[in-house]
Amino acid sequence: MQRHAIVLAAGKGTRMKSKQYKVLHEVAGKSMIVHVIDQVQQSGITDIVTIVGHGAEQVKATLGTTSQYSFQEAQLGTAHAVKQAAEHLAAQQGTTLVVCGDTPLITSDTLSKLMAHHETSQAQATVLSATTSQPYGYGRIVRNEQGGLVEIVEEKDATEAQKIIQEISSGIFAFDNATLFALLDQVDNDNAQGEYYLPQVLTLILQQQGHIGVYHTDNFDEIMGVNDRVALSRAEQAYRVRMNEYHMREGVTIIDPNTTYIGPDVTIGEDTVIEPGVRITGRTTIGSDVRIGQYSEIRDSQIDDGAVIKQSVITEAVVGAQSTVGPFAQLRPGADLGQDTKIGNFVEVKKARIDDGAKVSHLSYIGDAEVGARTNIGCGAITVNYDGVNKFKTTIGKDVFVGCNANLVAPVTIGDGTLVAAGSTITDNVPDYSLALGRARQVTKEGYLNKESKES
Amino acid sequence: MQRHAIVLAAGKGTRMKSKQYKVLHEVAGKSMIVHVIDQVQQSGITDIVTIVGHGAEQVKATLGTTSQYSFQEAQLGTAHAVKQAAEHLAAQQGTTLVVCGDTPLITSDTLSKLMAHHETSQAQATVLSATTSQPYGYGRIVRNEQGGLVEIVEEKDATEAQKIIQEISSGIFAFDNATLFALLDQVDNDNAQGEYYLPQVLTLILQQQGHIGVYHTDNFDEIMGVNDRVALSRAEQAYRVRMNEYHMREGVTIIDPNTTYIGPDVTIGEDTVIEPGVRITGRTTIGSDVRIGQYSEIRDSQIDDGAVIKQSVITEAVVGAQSTVGPFAQLRPGADLGQDTKIGNFVEVKKARIDDGAKVSHLSYIGDAEVGARTNIGCGAITVNYDGVNKFKTTIGKDVFVGCNANLVAPVTIGDGTLVAAGSTITDNVPDYSLALGRARQVTKEGYLNKESKES
Amino acid sequence: MQRHAIVLAAGKGTRMKSKQYKVLHEVAGKSMIVHVIDQVQQSGITDIVTIVGHGAEQVKATLGTTSQYSFQEAQLGTAHAVKQAAEHLAAQQGTTLVVCGDTPLITSDTLSKLMAHHETSQAQATVLSATTSQPYGYGRIVRNEQGGLVEIVEEKDATEAQKIIQEISSGIFAFDNATLFALLDQVDNDNAQGEYYLPQVLTLILQQQGHIGVYHTDNFDEIMGVNDRVALSRAEQAYRVRMNEYHMREGVTIIDPNTTYIGPDVTIGEDTVIEPGVRITGRTTIGSDVRIGQYSEIRDSQIDDGAVIKQSVITEAVVGAQSTVGPFAQLRPGADLGQDTKIGNFVEVKKARIDDGAKVSHLSYIGDAEVGARTNIGCGAITVNYDGVNKFKTTIGKDVFVGCNANLVAPVTIGDGTLVAAGSTITDNVPDYSLALGRARQVTKEGYLNKESKES
Repeated sequence: MQRHAIVLAAGKGTRMKSKQYKVLHEVAGKSMIVHVIDQVQQSGITDIVTIVGHGAEQVKATLGTTSQYSFQEAQLGTAHAVKQAAEHLAAQQGTTLVVCGDTPLITSDTLSKLMAHHETSQAQATVLSATTSQPYGYGRIVRNEQGGLVEIVEEKDATEAQKIIQEISSGIFAFDNATLFALLDQVDNDNAQGEYYLPQVLTLILQQQGHIGVYHTDNFDEIMGVNDRVALSRAEQAYRVRMNEYHMREGVTIIDPNTTYIGPDVTIGEDTVIEPGVRITGRTTIGSDVRIGQYSEIRDSQIDDGAVIKQSVITEAVVGAQSTVGPFAQLRPGADLGQDTKIGNFVEVKKARIDDGAKVSHLSYIGDAEVGARTNIGCGAITVNYDGVNKFKTTIGKDVFVGCNANLVAPVTIGDGTLVAAGSTITDNVPDYSLALGRARQVTKEGYLNKESKES
Repeated sequence: MQRHAIVLAAGKGTRMKSKQYKVLHEVAGKSMIVHVIDQVQQSGITDIVTIVGHGAEQVKATLGTTSQYSFQEAQLGTAHAVKQAAEHLAAQQGTTLVVCGDTPLITSDTLSKLMAHHETSQAQATVLSATTSQPYGYGRIVRNEQGGLVEIVEEKDATEAQKIIQEISSGIFAFDNATLFALLDQVDNDNAQGEYYLPQVLTLILQQQGHIGVYHTDNFDEIMGVNDRVALSRAEQAYRVRMNEYHMREGVTIIDPNTTYIGPDVTIGEDTVIEPGVRITGRTTIGSDVRIGQYSEIRDSQIDDGAVIKQSVITEAVVGAQSTVGPFAQLRPGADLGQDTKIGNFVEVKKARIDDGAKVSHLSYIGDAEVGARTNIGCGAITVNYDGVNKFKTTIGKDVFVGCNANLVAPVTIGDGTLVAAGSTITDNVPDYSLALGRARQVTKEGYLNKESKES
Repeated sequence: MQRHAIVLAAGKGTRMKSKQYKVLHEVAGKSMIVHVIDQVQQSGITDIVTIVGHGAEQVKATLGTTSQYSFQEAQLGTAHAVKQAAEHLAAQQGTTLVVCGDTPLITSDTLSKLMAHHETSQAQATVLSATTSQPYGYGRIVRNEQGGLVEIVEEKDATEAQKIIQEISSGIFAFDNATLFALLDQVDNDNAQGEYYLPQVLTLILQQQGHIGVYHTDNFDEIMGVNDRVALSRAEQAYRVRMNEYHMREGVTIIDPNTTYIGPDVTIGEDTVIEPGVRITGRTTIGSDVRIGQYSEIRDSQIDDGAVIKQSVITEAVVGAQSTVGPFAQLRPGADLGQDTKIGNFVEVKKARIDDGAKVSHLSYIGDAEVGARTNIGCGAITVNYDGVNKFKTTIGKDVFVGCNANLVAPVTIGDGTLVAAGSTITDNVPDYSLALGRARQVTKEGYLNKESKES
């Protein structure tokens, strides 16, 4: 059976009070619309049409070629929106899924089950329903005494008796594609809002003695629609619970799942411990037996087995196995730590290789540099990589000892096994196994501040 | 109609286990009593009498001239407390609100509605009630079959049948002022606690065939009394939910409202994003399109449009538009950043102007200084503003490049367009467009550490 | 009455998905098995036998001599596990408590009440029960019409009618020791799982017309068993609520108890305020009137009265009264601050005494050092304690002023009342009341960068 999907993403989202187009607001660091498209793809559908309207260009820029697009100029209702996809789908056969772009928690599993239910039961249309004690705002599923669907009634058209129905429509449907496009033209806007509603297609099918299915999901979160930022924060929380429970069941210890923020594209190995307040986003890979210390923020990085991160910020960086970072360290893009390295407090590393066993323990900035194996960068030592116009590279060999508060003025090469004295500013290359100094000799003026003068 | 308010703030608060007087404990960074007085004022009342007792001097110091005061020497009950206000109010006409100083979540909106209900219905007294499934500890609203108030019975005087009543008295009342002071003398202390209870005034009014109103609020939180620190933390949480929902509905994205702490006097523009764990207090103004990074703490500051703050501490400072701060930076009082500035990691700024486009990227302390436009302060460079006795000022021009680990010993002026070499200690003024150095020449002792000696 | 305890700790914990043995997983920073043993000891029992199996050596290493051990080679059920303790207990008299090693929230108070109930009622066995709306997975308490125990039926052997029983067995029992060991041999494995279940001992007692007691606890949390990491996180949360409510009732203000993490061996004085996100573990003592700033992490340390800690990491350190630390400071093991000291931002202190009134305000590392009273360490000044091979000590007297970015190369002694100039590297001792310099004189090349060249 051919399968297609129409994703509704044309609404403005006035209640978001935002310049930002509604479906581009993020849950767990990813736009709602991308969550939805990802799940549609994972359910096996590649033929996707996104209905765009407000902010069309931004949505297209976000989704790129993962979707085709149809433009809905005026937002006249969901049936009107779906109808715009005719240019791509009217001539197709098979099943067409209609999904809202503002239901970021929908899963491919539920979409797959909805389509399977639809196709197995040979329905012309199947609605995805759920049950909630707070149905306000959702279309209600009205059933007859035999349990068959009678209609889906919108909040604003519902009678008082209908308003207490707790089974609601998710706004997500599977349709027989040919039936859908055949009936869309017959939908009218004779209702409280004056809109062309997609559920009227179901009413039309019933009038023609067609068959409508209802597939009920137990997980109301999945179909939660986001219309304002309070709802957005609730979706964020529901997503957080889902992700964290997944990782915990896979063998990750999360000390406080309520305050642990893990994005959708993060993998974490067994026996890793995540302390409270940690946020891990982007395409990040965390190994096994890692400890991510409280309030760390990690994005698009790789943390290898046995590493220990304490209260640090890590972005587009690699931390080798058994290395320790922090507290209060920053690894910026291109930081590449080998195994058994140590990056201590108040250290910033950017675009630099720190080789196996090397240490940068305190108050340093290492940028545009290579630091050899087992080298020790003293407290406060700095790679002076910028002259105000250009950036230059510092190359430090292995087994080097760079003294405290030393300045290594790039471009410069410090040979293997050298010693740079504390307080030196190094501007010339240093050969292997050499001692380099660049500091004034100490002068002591004894008694210069005698006790009397101090106490006067 | 004249309106007055009596705020009860004389209790000791033994269960707080504190040297601190009860109503001075804080919710969202502001004393409970100040929350209450603020709301009373916002409801339009200026004639306020606060009944003080324990810690009277501290309460007066906190409230200053926003209130008059009456002193209750011994705490003999709420009626006795209210009676102390006779010196200010006994001769007045109109409506008198009686509010507890330990209900920090009461709103001016509810107080206004209570008074309007009271005055419209021409009652002699009106009680503010609410409903809770956990009425323990509160006075119960006992009604007759017609729904009229019979009495308010205290927990300790209630029968078993009365104890299951879920409608409770908030302890907040509107009174006809003349009736109130006329009846207070008739209140007795013939009850389980031996106290003079204010609700007995209502009983006396009923005995005289007077009219008592009940105004019911749906929001129980508003009347939540705080008697111990567990309750204090619950009030804090309820206040947090209220503030965060307000900001979200106004167009602010709050990723985790459960762990975002925004004070009552903070304003935030549209499309600003607040990451988890942020705390914003005092009189702080945040613009639009700002991003406040996780775990930042901002107090009494101004953050302009488009600024990005990462995991930093900002106090009494200004951050100009499009500027970036952090992670791990501290802006102390008097830090004043222009537009498009950058304050990077491990940088502290105090009492210093950083002009448009200037950068202080890493490991610096800039204090008592002016830094000109587009100037770049190198990593580890420091304003040496203190000689152990006095503080002096550093003036740095525009388009200056200060090299790494340089010391600028104040008082000193660095002219426009100058270059200060890395590792220099600068003690004398530098004219415009000059190069300043103050460092020893490098000496390299080649082979000083030959391979053999290293490996021996 | 003699009392003994058998602690069951032999299970593998497959659902934890861990190399780590189940009972060694931590709640509030302490292994579950240690929580349990601690509570057993606090209930007054010293004669404890822990049944070990998987990971036996690690469990023994963790518990040491607080327990005796019996080894259970194959895990054939709880009765089989208890039977292994015969080598220590079969000849004893009195009461024997059987406790699971994976119920980290059990309290000594409940264990004591269980034993008292057991002994007072002269039962042969008493089960600790609790009530839950989600009894899935627990053995159910089946009672007869008179309320007497009929049997305890395991989840997998329960009928549908039994499965809806909400009173469940905690798996914790008090036994008459002689009866227990007399009947263990009669337990069979004729059940769904093919295991030897301990509750069958109760059935055998009933068959012999013996007396079984049921002691019901209202606090379901206490008997919560941990079988996977989702349950582990729930135990962590329940423990957190318990600890935080305890401290709040004792007079500590905790602004957000949901995100405050206080270990079991922490003491905190009255009127101390704990801001959000703080974690305090190990044997830490916090005085009165202390403020622990948000997101700080404190382990095995002592913080004296009136100290103020802001967003810092403190490990095995002492902070004297009225001292301030942070934000973004790290006190490592052996940091010992006197009274009225100040450790500012981006400062690391390790194995160093900072005497009363001394200040290290910014960007310093003080390691292996003594800093005298009232001494001021300038911004960026560093103790150079390591030459790549050995660590040496820096001794700084009282009333010293160390200038910014100075290097004190250890071993070195700086006398009382001395002044070290900014930017100096000090390698030789400095006598009292002396001035020490070690920096190059400033050279200014005026007009070196004239305006034309800059703008070209």
